[in-house]
Formats: sequence, structure tokens, C-alpha cells
Amino acid sequence: MTYCVADYLADRLAEVGVEHVFGVPGDYNLAMLDHVVGHEALTWVGCANELDAGYAADGYGRLRGMAALATAFGVGELSAINAMAGSFAEHVPVVHVVGAPSTDHQSAHRVVHHSLGDGVFTHFMTMHEGITCARAALTADTARAEIDRVLVEVRDRHLPGYLLIPTDVSAAPADPPSGPLPAPVDTTDPEALAGFVDAARALLEKAGSVDHVALLAGLLTHRVGGREVLRELLGAGPVPHATTVWAKSLVDESVNHFVGTYAGGASAEEVRTTIEDAAALIVAGVQFTDLTSGFFTQRITRPRTVELGPRTASVGAATFSPVELPTALGALIPLVRELAGRAPATPREPTPAAPLPATDASEPLSQDALWAEVAGFLREGDLVLADQGTSFYGASTHRLPSGVTFIGQPLWASIGYTLPATLGACLAQPDSRGILLIGDGAAQLTVAELGTIVREGLAPLVVVVDNDGYTVERAIHGPAEPYNDITRWDWTAVPAMFAPAGGARACRAETVGELRAALTAAREDPSTLAVVQAVVPRDDVPQLLADLTKALGQANSGQGSSKA
Amino acid sequence: MTYCVADYLADRLAEVGVEHVFGVPGDYNLAMLDHVVGHEALTWVGCANELDAGYAADGYGRLRGMAALATAFGVGELSAINAMAGSFAEHVPVVHVVGAPSTDHQSAHRVVHHSLGDGVFTHFMTMHEGITCARAALTADTARAEIDRVLVEVRDRHLPGYLLIPTDVSAAPADPPSGPLPAPVDTTDPEALAGFVDAARALLEKAGSVDHVALLAGLLTHRVGGREVLRELLGAGPVPHATTVWAKSLVDESVNHFVGTYAGGASAEEVRTTIEDAAALIVAGVQFTDLTSGFFTQRITRPRTVELGPRTASVGAATFSPVELPTALGALIPLVRELAGRAPATPREPTPAAPLPATDASEPLSQDALWAEVAGFLREGDLVLADQGTSFYGASTHRLPSGVTFIGQPLWASIGYTLPATLGACLAQPDSRGILLIGDGAAQLTVAELGTIVREGLAPLVVVVDNDGYTVERAIHGPAEPYNDITRWDWTAVPAMFAPAGGARACRAETVGELRAALTAAREDPSTLAVVQAVVPRDDVPQLLADLTKALGQANSGQGSSKA
Repeated sequence: MTYCVADYLADRLAEVGVEHVFGVPGDYNLAMLDHVVGHEALTWVGCANELDAGYAADGYGRLRGMAALATAFGVGELSAINAMAGSFAEHVPVVHVVGAPSTDHQSAHRVVHHSLGDGVFTHFMTMHEGITCARAALTADTARAEIDRVLVEVRDRHLPGYLLIPTDVSAAPADPPSGPLPAPVDTTDPEALAGFVDAARALLEKAGSVDHVALLAGLLTHRVGGREVLRELLGAGPVPHATTVWAKSLVDESVNHFVGTYAGGASAEEVRTTIEDAAALIVAGVQFTDLTSGFFTQRITRPRTVELGPRTASVGAATFSPVELPTALGALIPLVRELAGRAPATPREPTPAAPLPATDASEPLSQDALWAEVAGFLREGDLVLADQGTSFYGASTHRLPSGVTFIGQPLWASIGYTLPATLGACLAQPDSRGILLIGDGAAQLTVAELGTIVREGLAPLVVVVDNDGYTVERAIHGPAEPYNDITRWDWTAVPAMFAPAGGARACRAETVGELRAALTAAREDPSTLAVVQAVVPRDDVPQLLADLTKALGQANSGQGSSKA
Repeated sequence: MTYCVADYLADRLAEVGVEHVFGVPGDYNLAMLDHVVGHEALTWVGCANELDAGYAADGYGRLRGMAALATAFGVGELSAINAMAGSFAEHVPVVHVVGAPSTDHQSAHRVVHHSLGDGVFTHFMTMHEGITCARAALTADTARAEIDRVLVEVRDRHLPGYLLIPTDVSAAPADPPSGPLPAPVDTTDPEALAGFVDAARALLEKAGSVDHVALLAGLLTHRVGGREVLRELLGAGPVPHATTVWAKSLVDESVNHFVGTYAGGASAEEVRTTIEDAAALIVAGVQFTDLTSGFFTQRITRPRTVELGPRTASVGAATFSPVELPTALGALIPLVRELAGRAPATPREPTPAAPLPATDASEPLSQDALWAEVAGFLREGDLVLADQGTSFYGASTHRLPSGVTFIGQPLWASIGYTLPATLGACLAQPDSRGILLIGDGAAQLTVAELGTIVREGLAPLVVVVDNDGYTVERAIHGPAEPYNDITRWDWTAVPAMFAPAGGARACRAETVGELRAALTAAREDPSTLAVVQAVVPRDDVPQLLADLTKALGQANSGQGSSKA
């Protein structure tokens, strides 16, 4: 076969680290998929629907730094568009490859299926403008350059991109890559960096000791590749530190100087005072959102703050740019080391997790008991996905063991996201045990991907929180209204439904003891999907969520909205 | 409670004929939903996810002429956007009501959940521009006028519309409607109509007899409310007639002068010659699309054709405008009656259905046998939804009994659509028995709504065509490629999965006899959902689809694309 544009795309995807391509076939992308399934470094992962495929790609992209999604024109791409918008909001690099009608059909304005029937073929690419960092409608002439441009943008800006490939362009002969894609460039200006270091040193020296310095790390630190250098910085001196809940598991939560997750006024008191009262505070890659800031109740005062954005660093009122976040963190390492060497830090005890596990196994499950048990069950290497709602807020208040990865989606907050994201994340990190925590209402949105998980031979533990409805919505408004009811399902029937695709286990847990037994059984058999239907009272919510939903209900009703 | 904007909206929805509002709650629409569930004429139908809710609303809107969908900002509306695009392509009036963050939060550019985090709140409404006929972002001051404008546009243009309602606007005090919405206006110009009638009379008189006249009716005849007047026209004289496959069930297919469905060169020979060789041809509300025209092989020559669009009528090369389609059809009635009175029409035998049912009940199911059995099973009052793929093409070649409604989606062609559409259609037409015909791959996209169907106490018969993959895609390209495989499910486990919501039955049929038994059992018990997993050979496709997919595969590979 002649080397063609689809081969070029496949080679470039493999080059940027994609090993799995998620999607759903359609007649406009079938021939292109030949070059995906035929590529030695790529594996096709067909999903039950396109939204799920988009979520799976997002889960994969969070862990791998690049993901690919393939769908068909119109119906496919629009079904996935909510996932792409989520990837944009949460800074996840996913390239969406859309197979389109042939150039001839487009030029002739044909009324073909999957179009609006108006002969216009630009509608759907236009709809992606606000939610992608780069887009291209490929032609045979421009395909190679445009593929490179879009992939580099997606990789370096950590945001989704979009490639529209007509059937004939996909099959058009092309030259293979003439060399590797350009490597990412550190755009830091040395003079800006020097100015930043001087200013930061002055602020830290004024604090006098690492005891009076604190660090708050956010999601963007992860996205811009600052995780390793952050680890080094925290190793240079025992600076008390926290993350936002959005950045859960960015740092090792088992060390004594990790104080917890910071969420403004909704933080535990020790976390709040550590962050808000530090003489010098380093804030790295933090974006405050309503649900991760206790509804904008953060108190971060600029004069005592070193703040690092992806490409801008500031100390007090002085801004230095361009200074890339990892570079800025790296420049702080010697400063922290110097400060720590000057005066020994006060030893700290680890913050205890609260609430504690129940002592009585016959106790009926509650939200508190459920999350305490789940937290106690986690171990190094686990990959936890917690769906927005009681699962995310219940699980995120617990301290994670070292080496646990935690994924949530608190800004975009699309319920059901984590179920297909578990598929993607487990494929991205195959040595980890996936643990999905999800409400019953949320799981109904994307249930079909449990079948794909079984087919792929993955074996996550799935805890479905059965509380008879949209409990988080009940907490906000309309606790007894019918719109917060959901259809009741029997989640223990999942293995029968997906039996032709492979084995699975399922059980129902109504007490602490039943939950413990189910978790233990799942841990002991890491070979199959294990579904635990965990029954909790209908209106029970974790405390953090109760606080947040109260603020949210007020905000939606027009009260308390002028707080920030 | 003070009468508010949400009350006004609910009153207007009820006024335009909405009885059921489909959707998924989210915190930005909860308070608005209070006024839906509290309205005496409206019923809330919560769905498992938003795409499904959009499809359900579409199914409802096709039968009722108006439907409503309610979702939350960002995550909800984007999950449903593929359904809205489908409603636009297929001319279905659905108003999509999106609950948004409060005006205060929008003005302050708050980084709130379900936004992209950039403080911009117009992204998603902009994305709806190409796929809605009217849109409004409501304010307290403009809400009443804008609601009226959008609802009237949706009603009269038979296309979807979009209303964005911030939480505070929803709750803002408002006056109730001061009078009814303006009634639809017939924009026909009497002089244009008179010119049209003269020209049409001349053409019909040249044909000499109704034997030499033919009529081809399309989907838009249904959408613009021309169905009744078409029936009258066909009653005025025995004109041989056909519909496009897109307009299946628009006319009574049991009468002798119905010759079948016309699909260009893919038509049965008698249908093709009847339409293409008529001395005078009346074409009403027809849009030719690739999959409904045998890939643009229609031969409709202008000089012998009366063509009616929604607001334009033409005879040969002469165009008369504005002339509305129902008015034009009505004006043709006396002409046809006159012609029929002049020379008696030749009696016709009804066209036999092909292929015929099997004689041997132990015969394994095939596509031909399956659709012959299903066609023979239909009776007056049935409401058939056939998913794009083997179901649609297999079922649509059979002649329907009188009084059967048939729904498909051959232009937008979003697989999985018909499952939630069955929910909407059954609620819209409660005296009908729903019959859903859908492939196993397609049903996986939207399976969760079977739970809603059970919860609502609906009892459709669902035939899941189990052929181990995307058979229609296999027929187009890559018959043995892994991307056309799907995860195998056991559809007989459906009743167990949804048991907490109500009863259902399911069985597997591998032979004609087993299928007959399953259909009979479903007919005899109209009280519960009945799922029949009908097993057919993997690569078996109905003949019409085989012809189409061959043309499609060639079109996608760049061959044969200059045919039309």
C-alpha cells in the first residue's frame, strides 16, 4: 500500500505518545481506521458511544499527556463534544480526529447523511472553535503541515485540538515525516527569571524559616509538567503544603508536611490557617473555581505571595514574564534549601484522616462510613476516579497513601465522566488497579462502557453509590422533587449483561461489614471487573459537599453572589 | 408564590402543545423545574442522560409538532447537541431550555462549574447557531417577548430553538401571557397561487388521465402540516403514488394505488418507472439525500413536474412564490378530481411485499426472514421506529398496514437515536404500541433509556438485531476489521437490570419460529417492555442496504462521486 495521509497521522500520533486510539467507527472514518489498526504502535479501542469515547480519551490524556479520539462527521463528533469541552476546561490534551465526507462531495454541496442537508460542511468545525486550541480541515496539500501544527499545539498547550479529514484526503499519498516534531521549547526569559528569583528570595528571607513558608499547588502544575520539580522543591525543605482538591494526588499526601486539601473557607481549619497565615506563600498553578474554593472564600493576600502561572511568575505586585512554571519552581529549590539549612524546621505529625472508620461492622453504610472504608482500602499504585458529587467530595477529604493517583473533574463537573475515564485511565496506566467511585445517577449516563471495560480485560473496582437519585442536586434544591429521582437499577445484574464479553463480579453492600468483604474480595481477585452497589441513605451527604451545596443553592437563588 | 418567568415559559409550552418535558436536572435548572413539575398541564420525564433526552424530545416532536428539552448549562446542553442537530437536519420542532448560572455570576465572569473557566458564558449558545432557527439568552426584561418569539419560530419553521435562562431570570417576577401566541399565518400570495393553478392544470390536462399522473411525497409534506390535504388529494382520484423512504408512513400504504417507496435507481422497478415515466409528476415536500435517493440516481425531469416546496411551488421551469405547500396541494384537488372524472382510471392490484415470510418455522433467522416476519406482525395503530442500518432498510421496503406510524432518521443517521425516540414517541402517542427495530451496536449507544421506558410503564416491543457488530459499516468497508466489532452483550439480561423500576420480558430468537413466538407473546401482553434478541448472520444485509453501501463505499473512496 502507498504511504498516505492516514499513515502520516498515525505515525505522528505514535510519536507524541499515543498508544491507544478511542472512538466509534462511521463510514467516513472507516478507511482511515485501517491505518490505525494496521499501525504497529497503535491499538484501536472501540467504545459503545462517542461521548464515552471522549471521556475515555480524556482519562488517558490526563495520565499520558496526549490522547486521541476518532469519530465520524456530524453525529459522532457532536456526541463527543461535551467531552472535548471538558478536556478544554480541565486542560487535557486530546486530539479529536473526525472523518468527513470526501472533498468532492463537500465541493458539490451534496446532501449527504450526517450533514444538516444544507450542503455546508463547516458547521461542526466552527462549533469546536471555543473548545479547542487548534483546528484544521485537512487537504491533501496541507495535511502534513497541519497535522504537525495541531499536534504540537495540543501537546504544548495541554488543550484539545481538532482535525477534520475527508475520506479522500485520508487516502491521499503523502511522504512520511522527514524528521521528528519540534520539541517543546522553554520560553523563559533569563532576565525575567533573574528578577523573579531576587524578589522571591527577599520574600522568603523575610519569612525567616520554612516553618513560616507554605506552598499551595494546583492542577496546572500537573498539566505543564511541573510535578517532578515540585517534588524536588518539597524535598529541599519541609515546607508545609497543600493542594487544591482539583489537584488531588499531585503531591505525596503521606508525608508529614502535607497538611491537606485547601478549599478556602471550606478547608479543615489547620489547612486554612497554614495556607492563609503563612508569612510567605508559594502558589503554583492554581485556578480557583466555585467548587474548589469553598465558593470563592479563599484568602490569599498578594504581598506575601509568590504566584506561578503556566508562563508568568509574580512576587507580590511584581510580575515576571515569560517565566515557565517548572522553571520557576526549579529556581525556588536552592532558595528553600538555603532557608531550611538556616533554621531547622519544627517536626510535624501527619494530619489524621477524618472521619475515622467504623468499629462496628454491622453498622449500616453512611456516606462517612463509606468513604472512610474506601480511603482505608487504598494502597500504593491504585488509580482512583471519583465522580463529581458525593463520591468526589467524600473521597477527596481523605489523605491518600503514597503512590495513589486521583482523578476528578470539579470544574467541568460532567456527571458520568469518570466511568469511561476509568477505561482510558486503566489503559494508560496498566499496572495500577482502577477504583471508580460513582453515584447511581451518574453511572446511568455512561453505563455502556462497563461492557468495554470487560471486553478489554480490565479489572477495576467500581463502587456505585446507591442513594436513589441525584443526591448532590437534592442537597442544592428540591430534596423531594421528582426531577431529582432517577430510575432504580439493579447494578448486580451488570455481570449478566456483559457476560458474553467476559467475566465480572457484583454484589450489594448495605453495612460496613458487607462493604469490607466486597472490597477485600475485589482486592484478592485482580482479574475481573468488580461492581459493588453500596447502599447509603438517600439524603446523606459528606460534610464538605453539604457546605458547598448550601453556598451553591444561595448563589443560584441570587443570594450571596457578591462575596468574591 | 409570585408568578415568574419560569411560570410564563411553562404556560407557553403548554399552549403550544407540550405535555411532556424531557431532560436531566442540574443545579442551574433545578428551581426552573419546580415550575415544570408544578404545572398542571406539564409532566417531567427525567432521562438517564441528555443525548437520550434530546432524542426522546425529537421522537415526541415528530408526532406532536412541538417538544421541549431541559438541560443544564455546558455539560447538559452539549451532551444533547447531537440530538438538536439531528432535529435541525430532520425538521423537528424541539425547544431546548438551558438553565444557566445567574446573571450576577456571568457579569462578574466567575469561574463556576460547567463553564470553561474563562469567565465567558456565550460559548455554548454560539455553538447552537447553525442548528437552531431561533435563540435567546433571556433577561428579566426581555424574557416574555423572547420566549414568544422563539416558540413561534420553532412551531412555524418546524426546527429546533434554544432558550438560555439564568437562575435569577427564571425566578424573576413576570406577568402572565396577556393573550394567546399569534396563530400560524398562510403566507400564500393569491396571484402566485392562481398562476400556479393555471400552469398545473395545463400540465395535468396534457397527461390526459390519472393513469398518466404520478405523485411522490416527501418528509416536508408531513412537517409543514400537509398530510391531511395530501390524503384528500389522493382521495380525489386514484393517482399512482409513492413516498420517499424518509417519508415512510406519510400516506396509507395499504391502498392499491400506493406503489411503494421511491429511492432513485435503488427503487423497485415498478416504483421507479411509475415515478420516472409519468407524463405529469407531482412532487411534494421532497428533499433527495444520498441514502434516500439511491445515491442521487433519481431521474425527475423538470418539464413534466409539479414541484412543491414548503413555500414555493413550481410547474416545469415556472416558479410561484410564496405558495405554501398545503395550500398548493389543496389547489390541486379539484384538478385531480376533474381529471379522474374525465376518464376512469385503470384498476390496480396492490404491489406484493417482498421478500415473503418463510414457510418453515425452523429456518434460522436471516435479515430477509426477520423483516418479513416483523412486517407481517404489524397492525393498525403500531408505532414503528427503525434505527438507521439494517433495521431501517430492512423494514422500510415492506408495505405497511393502514394506520401504522413509521419513524426513521435517514439524513442525520445517528445510530442509537430510535431507542430514546421510542420513549418520546410512545408518550406522544400513548394509544399506539411502540415497536423498536434496532441493531445491537446501535442499541449500546443509548441503552440506558430502556430503564426510563420501564419506569414510565411503557411497553414497546424492542427487536435487537444481534449480528455481532456494525454490520452496515462492514458492508461499506472493512468487513473483518476490528473497528467494526462491538462488545457482545446479553440483551436477555435487560429485565434483571431494570427490575427495580418495573417488569420487562426478554428472550432470544434464532429461528423464524422462535421469533414468531416472541412477537406473539409480546402482542398478547401489552403491559410490559419486551426485548427480543434476534440473532442473524454477521454479514447478512437487506438488498436495498447492500446496494446503497456499495455506492457509499465507492463515494468514500473517491469513485463514482461525480454521478449526480
